Amino acid sequence: MNEPVVYLNTGFLPASQAKLNIYDLGIVLGATLTEMTRTFRHQPYRAMDHVKRLYRSLKYAGIALPLSPEEMLEKTNELAETNCKLLRPDEDLGIVHFVTPGENALYAGSAGAAGPMTPTICIHSFPLRFSMWRHLFTEGAHVVTPSIRHIPPQCVEPKMKNRSRLHWFLADKQSQAVDPRAITLLLDLDGNVTECAGSNFVIIKDSTIITPTTRNILWGVSLQTVKELAAGIGMQFIEKDFQPYDVINADEAWLTTTPYCLAPCTKINNIPIGTGKPGLWFNTMQAAWSERVGMDIETQLMRSAL
Amino acid sequence: MNEPVVYLNTGFLPASQAKLNIYDLGIVLGATLTEMTRTFRHQPYRAMDHVKRLYRSLKYAGIALPLSPEEMLEKTNELAETNCKLLRPDEDLGIVHFVTPGENALYAGSAGAAGPMTPTICIHSFPLRFSMWRHLFTEGAHVVTPSIRHIPPQCVEPKMKNRSRLHWFLADKQSQAVDPRAITLLLDLDGNVTECAGSNFVIIKDSTIITPTTRNILWGVSLQTVKELAAGIGMQFIEKDFQPYDVINADEAWLTTTPYCLAPCTKINNIPIGTGKPGLWFNTMQAAWSERVGMDIETQLMRSAL
Amino acid sequence: MNEPVVYLNTGFLPASQAKLNIYDLGIVLGATLTEMTRTFRHQPYRAMDHVKRLYRSLKYAGIALPLSPEEMLEKTNELAETNCKLLRPDEDLGIVHFVTPGENALYAGSAGAAGPMTPTICIHSFPLRFSMWRHLFTEGAHVVTPSIRHIPPQCVEPKMKNRSRLHWFLADKQSQAVDPRAITLLLDLDGNVTECAGSNFVIIKDSTIITPTTRNILWGVSLQTVKELAAGIGMQFIEKDFQPYDVINADEAWLTTTPYCLAPCTKINNIPIGTGKPGLWFNTMQAAWSERVGMDIETQLMRSAL
Amino acid sequence: MNEPVVYLNTGFLPASQAKLNIYDLGIVLGATLTEMTRTFRHQPYRAMDHVKRLYRSLKYAGIALPLSPEEMLEKTNELAETNCKLLRPDEDLGIVHFVTPGENALYAGSAGAAGPMTPTICIHSFPLRFSMWRHLFTEGAHVVTPSIRHIPPQCVEPKMKNRSRLHWFLADKQSQAVDPRAITLLLDLDGNVTECAGSNFVIIKDSTIITPTTRNILWGVSLQTVKELAAGIGMQFIEKDFQPYDVINADEAWLTTTPYCLAPCTKINNIPIGTGKPGLWFNTMQAAWSERVGMDIETQLMRSAL
Amino acid sequence: MNEPVVYLNTGFLPASQAKLNIYDLGIVLGATLTEMTRTFRHQPYRAMDHVKRLYRSLKYAGIALPLSPEEMLEKTNELAETNCKLLRPDEDLGIVHFVTPGENALYAGSAGAAGPMTPTICIHSFPLRFSMWRHLFTEGAHVVTPSIRHIPPQCVEPKMKNRSRLHWFLADKQSQAVDPRAITLLLDLDGNVTECAGSNFVIIKDSTIITPTTRNILWGVSLQTVKELAAGIGMQFIEKDFQPYDVINADEAWLTTTPYCLAPCTKINNIPIGTGKPGLWFNTMQAAWSERVGMDIETQLMRSAL
Amino acid sequence: MNEPVVYLNTGFLPASQAKLNIYDLGIVLGATLTEMTRTFRHQPYRAMDHVKRLYRSLKYAGIALPLSPEEMLEKTNELAETNCKLLRPDEDLGIVHFVTPGENALYAGSAGAAGPMTPTICIHSFPLRFSMWRHLFTEGAHVVTPSIRHIPPQCVEPKMKNRSRLHWFLADKQSQAVDPRAITLLLDLDGNVTECAGSNFVIIKDSTIITPTTRNILWGVSLQTVKELAAGIGMQFIEKDFQPYDVINADEAWLTTTPYCLAPCTKINNIPIGTGKPGLWFNTMQAAWSERVGMDIETQLMRSAL
Repeated sequence: MNEPVVYLNTGFLPASQAKLNIYDLGIVLGATLTEMTRTFRHQPYRAMDHVKRLYRSLKYAGIALPLSPEEMLEKTNELAETNCKLLRPDEDLGIVHFVTPGENALYAGSAGAAGPMTPTICIHSFPLRFSMWRHLFTEGAHVVTPSIRHIPPQCVEPKMKNRSRLHWFLADKQSQAVDPRAITLLLDLDGNVTECAGSNFVIIKDSTIITPTTRNILWGVSLQTVKELAAGIGMQFIEKDFQPYDVINADEAWLTTTPYCLAPCTKINNIPIGTGKPGLWFNTMQAAWSERVGMDIETQLMRSAL
Repeated sequence: MNEPVVYLNTGFLPASQAKLNIYDLGIVLGATLTEMTRTFRHQPYRAMDHVKRLYRSLKYAGIALPLSPEEMLEKTNELAETNCKLLRPDEDLGIVHFVTPGENALYAGSAGAAGPMTPTICIHSFPLRFSMWRHLFTEGAHVVTPSIRHIPPQCVEPKMKNRSRLHWFLADKQSQAVDPRAITLLLDLDGNVTECAGSNFVIIKDSTIITPTTRNILWGVSLQTVKELAAGIGMQFIEKDFQPYDVINADEAWLTTTPYCLAPCTKINNIPIGTGKPGLWFNTMQAAWSERVGMDIETQLMRSAL
Repeated sequence: MNEPVVYLNTGFLPASQAKLNIYDLGIVLGATLTEMTRTFRHQPYRAMDHVKRLYRSLKYAGIALPLSPEEMLEKTNELAETNCKLLRPDEDLGIVHFVTPGENALYAGSAGAAGPMTPTICIHSFPLRFSMWRHLFTEGAHVVTPSIRHIPPQCVEPKMKNRSRLHWFLADKQSQAVDPRAITLLLDLDGNVTECAGSNFVIIKDSTIITPTTRNILWGVSLQTVKELAAGIGMQFIEKDFQPYDVINADEAWLTTTPYCLAPCTKINNIPIGTGKPGLWFNTMQAAWSERVGMDIETQLMRSAL
Repeated sequence: MNEPVVYLNTGFLPASQAKLNIYDLGIVLGATLTEMTRTFRHQPYRAMDHVKRLYRSLKYAGIALPLSPEEMLEKTNELAETNCKLLRPDEDLGIVHFVTPGENALYAGSAGAAGPMTPTICIHSFPLRFSMWRHLFTEGAHVVTPSIRHIPPQCVEPKMKNRSRLHWFLADKQSQAVDPRAITLLLDLDGNVTECAGSNFVIIKDSTIITPTTRNILWGVSLQTVKELAAGIGMQFIEKDFQPYDVINADEAWLTTTPYCLAPCTKINNIPIGTGKPGLWFNTMQAAWSERVGMDIETQLMRSAL
Repeated sequence: MNEPVVYLNTGFLPASQAKLNIYDLGIVLGATLTEMTRTFRHQPYRAMDHVKRLYRSLKYAGIALPLSPEEMLEKTNELAETNCKLLRPDEDLGIVHFVTPGENALYAGSAGAAGPMTPTICIHSFPLRFSMWRHLFTEGAHVVTPSIRHIPPQCVEPKMKNRSRLHWFLADKQSQAVDPRAITLLLDLDGNVTECAGSNFVIIKDSTIITPTTRNILWGVSLQTVKELAAGIGMQFIEKDFQPYDVINADEAWLTTTPYCLAPCTKINNIPIGTGKPGLWFNTMQAAWSERVGMDIETQLMRSAL
Repeated sequence: MNEPVVYLNTGFLPASQAKLNIYDLGIVLGATLTEMTRTFRHQPYRAMDHVKRLYRSLKYAGIALPLSPEEMLEKTNELAETNCKLLRPDEDLGIVHFVTPGENALYAGSAGAAGPMTPTICIHSFPLRFSMWRHLFTEGAHVVTPSIRHIPPQCVEPKMKNRSRLHWFLADKQSQAVDPRAITLLLDLDGNVTECAGSNFVIIKDSTIITPTTRNILWGVSLQTVKELAAGIGMQFIEKDFQPYDVINADEAWLTTTPYCLAPCTKINNIPIGTGKPGLWFNTMQAAWSERVGMDIETQLMRSAL
């Protein structure tokens, strides 16, 4: 088969056959818990960390799965192995997990009280299209803070990676009115910096990496990697509320995220951050990361055919 | 064909074939705008009001459709006509519209910048399972205010009927821990009463119907019907922030919603509202509504085989 | 007996014997619902309105009494009749109702699970000491907004007249640092004007009486009297959020309260309101009220020996 | 005498004679500052810490006492010595201090301006009824977060231990609708975890004890004990805002409180915390505490006749 | 003299000599209260309304002037008469009042306690440059809601027209990044629409003009004019909190302001309002206004040489 | 020349000639960024730190200057050298920088679109009038928390030292109604302690200096000095939200500020802080500071003729 496979509910099937019923609560309610993992050299990176976070989200949402975390990891590895065979050596995969509570019985035409729902479980992958992110490494990212605010945790908990994300879609429209390539950085209701749609956002000041607090963000596995690597390259890592002023007057700012790991952020609301160029700490951290995964992350990203 | 049809994107197909790609932004982001209409005696009720509200939601979300509202109405009527043929005379349909921005090109394996997305458009229907709501008319609804708060409009605008609704799923779990049949009534961040997951909530005091303000709610077509009928039966209708104290000490409380139109709410957080029984104003309003639609709403609901 | 009586739990006893156990939840938790009524010419005024509000508070707090509202009114009238005999003709009574959930079994030395608590019910009275309020009529009241904010309704509902009022005690200390005779006017968390410790606060602008919204205040029976009298003297009455700016630039401001009914408020935070003198609308409203109760309210207040 | 004594205002008297006047501001305003101490083997534990915190509360509330902290401690010890004589050896006392500003002169029938009030001072005790808490050690506590929110410090300061606590009474009703044995855990207005009515609440993650910040809680003497013991058993102790997600995904959670010192909390809103069983760190901390006080705390609790 | 005059403190002087000391609290603290009036056909329009509002601002700020409102009006008229002589007939003036508390004695080198400050009083004028606003009438205004929020009234009261307006300067930079001609429309901390830097903002829905509430806005004299004219042209006028959704789905939106009176607003955040064209109600209201002032407002604006 | 000089825009001029046009945005909008530096023994102290902070403010505000920070420092030193010649040896200077975006072209009578504005740049100085602050060292400061709240950073960022400070002027009136010498200490919208108008505010507890968080304050150069000196005298320094309760029950409290460096604060809202006397830690910190600057700060302040 020269088509990738998708794991759906109980087994693997060709990607082109992976469909959801329109009555699934993922589509009816946006009630979906999710994860995104990547491979390095065709091996899933920290997949168990992602799986565990998925199960924390599910526990919070009160959804029990028939698969144990270990079984989920096994399926993940199986999918990665199969789908990586379709890649060239310099390519890698993004692997997505998502789980919904199952189908809306009423819409599906069945009686509402006909027993518990069966969760929908899906694992799928896609080749990382590195070309989409190259400009982040040549120019640096431009983050824009739109008028829309991040949802507070007493409404929807951001630490639970989920897909009720319509506000991100709308916020992106506002940000992209400022710059078509802008990446949205949401403020919370108090005006604190939180996170980007697909990445964490940190600033660097006096050799300290500062992340927004766990109150307002999904704690990324990539952010965790940055935290773990910090001491080894002579940096401190702290968690603290901060505001756009701190970003503007930081030495550097970074995005951390699964697909491209780490990118320099050089502009916020059209104002340069630090010198307005990717910084030295960025280079050092990226090098440490490349060393950890045994390949040059940026080289792959800049040169891959994708 | 003895299977209902679904309108998906460009035409009708059998319901069993109506699937969404797992890369659709409806499932990836919960970025779905939606409506629910019902039929009375197999005729869609106020369908144009629903279609117009859908287009207001789409305008807010920046999504343009190839169908005009008139065309959307036409498809809706066509679907209703077809699918009602599968019903018994005492049955009726719920008709769901939903629209998403289209598919996530990255996940789908295509280049990210490959042109604008094509929105996903769906209209489907289901027979109203009246048996699910009968207890509301014999006992009255029990609303519970959980710890989770409604999302404020500066994050996600409730006037835009949408499906980023994970917080409702979680809030229901909290409410149902108090009473398995409880209906969730969310408070806003300031502790004001807002709305239920699938219905508006109003209280009656001294012959005045009081609705929460437009700040916090989707303005239901059924709520609008209540407003229009009020003067004719000697009631006033006002919009005002209120709190659980006002509910507890109201004369009556009602739910208004598309599938069953109007139901008495007789309890909040285990405390009886008014006498704790469906009230006289409820009967009067329901009678006015039945008269308007030319059939006895409650009789259908209590007696239909569904 | 030349001592007033107090109704406590099940019957009347001399005031000097009316004590509460130190284990009563009124003292242990401040869990007390209360009312204050006054007599005019030795007759309780709107006593049933006060009793009904007490029962609304009790319903909200989930406390059921063995006495019906009608029985409570009867006891109230009986107490008033007895205690008024000790008054001179130009004097009148304040009558206080309070109810607590009963005693803390643990502190009282009994087993915690020894059955439901029996509520503590108390009615007592005191002669209205008019001399305390005379300066309000010669100079007008001076309200001060301290740094402390009113408790929001999602924490403690102000419409439930209760005695968890430590914040008023502390706020008074702040206000009285500005003026020893200052009356505290609390702002809510958003900076809106709410109410005074023992009175409602309204402003008058262009012949309209403006009260803070029901969100933030106990709706006083005296405020209700003002509302009822307004149309008869050519005034409008509306409910609306307002801020200190509106008070400073109002035509007049009033306090409404059970003991002295209505007083002019002529200063806020040392800034004169309107002309800084009691206004014409005040005189008109007070006259209407005196007419309703069949006696000159201010004459009694200024001349009574008390 | 085989009745315990109570210290009231100026001296000791039999408990059955300890009553408060209904005009006391403790009952009129809930204006009461308080403390709860316990004995271990009939000796008051950290009584001076409790007395000092009482005086901090009084300083904040602007209430000056005729007794110095040292004199208050002396009275406390005297009361403990007397009342412990009525106990069996395996029993212990809870000792309560409370202070109010004194009596409401107006209600009491005296002139309002008749000089400064004299504070009411009370110390009383009760045998700790260990049987009430045994299930906490066999099953673990179940905390529930109701819809009602904790009062913010700009309204009533939680660091001042006080008895304007009606909202706890109401919140308990909401929590106990979920589980009759539920312990209320209030969120603050921002959705952060705060404290329980009679205990502090902490979570344990990766050998670190995490307490909510001083912004939102009374800093318990038992919490302080936990902090002091942490390093000795290889734990860290930090202060940080956290949310229900963190509780659900913690390794363990504990309640700390004077009467039973430390209890495992194994469930929040019906979701198990960690394994859903009392954890190993709990056992270690409880053992350290038992060692410090020279007796096995849990043995007493499980075996005492009370 | 062919130079306009300025009134400064005690008398008139040529505009080129009107300077403020750098120690003035207007520059040191932004502590400036202000007004803007315009002339129609060289006559100040509603100047007394502006003067009265200035004195309300001054009363709120606790600043007393040696000039009475009547004297201030007289100076205003005198200045207008003088400076209008320099205008062509089709031109008109903007007239600015501003008042500061006076000079900072410390900075000025004088002793800090050397007596009360003398307020700085200034009246100056400028020709209305109609060409700046012409595009508003051909295209309609484009309002943008930036990330920055309006200051809440408990911090700085917007009903007091003042010049601590740095946030408007910063907000304009954000808005103009979306569209160089964008007009900033600030949301409040709750996401409600408030006002523009130099104009009020209203929407029209079903023949009703809806203004944000007095909580959040300076009540413009032009807004007042709109209110007064509404009934005469068959419109209602109400005050209500609303959000961007309501703007997007309004029939029309308008700016009201002193210099150009009324302008259509046709776009918000790049989304068309109503049809995206100036509406019929706008034409009707503008015509009513022109009639009231006896000249065609738009003709002047479009044709004046300025 | 025996008059001090002022640097204005492009060069030095006599102080008496330093005026601003009334059209300057500093006066029109309060759009002014500023700094205050002092000399010790006629040498500017940490002037580069102040200049750098000014440039951070300007970057945040989007204002670019023709002067580099180094050139600004040079002008500052030049001004200090010139103006110090007018001082006696025991006197010192306060040096003020302020920058505005330039002039309002419309008001100035020029076309609005006539090119970019030229910023107004000013450096001026004044002799430090030590006598104004002596009572702070004999009695200690009395801080008062008024009803007005500090502006949140999502409206105006306090880390940007600016002059849109009308709320401080109004808050001072409220505080000074309590005590004419009171220094205003603003709370934030959540009731946290923030800062004073011209100084930072810290508390000392158990040898730890606690400052409010960077969210709510301008990080003073004097506060930074305190932080740097802390370890050397055996103190810790942390950043944390705290409330008035913490101030009342602190060991000491201090003001830190450029003109007098460090002062004891001994009272808040009429309640003594700690012992109510300047504390030992204060003496130690002040001595360390004096040592760093090579002169006895308090001796100068108490004895200087100014």
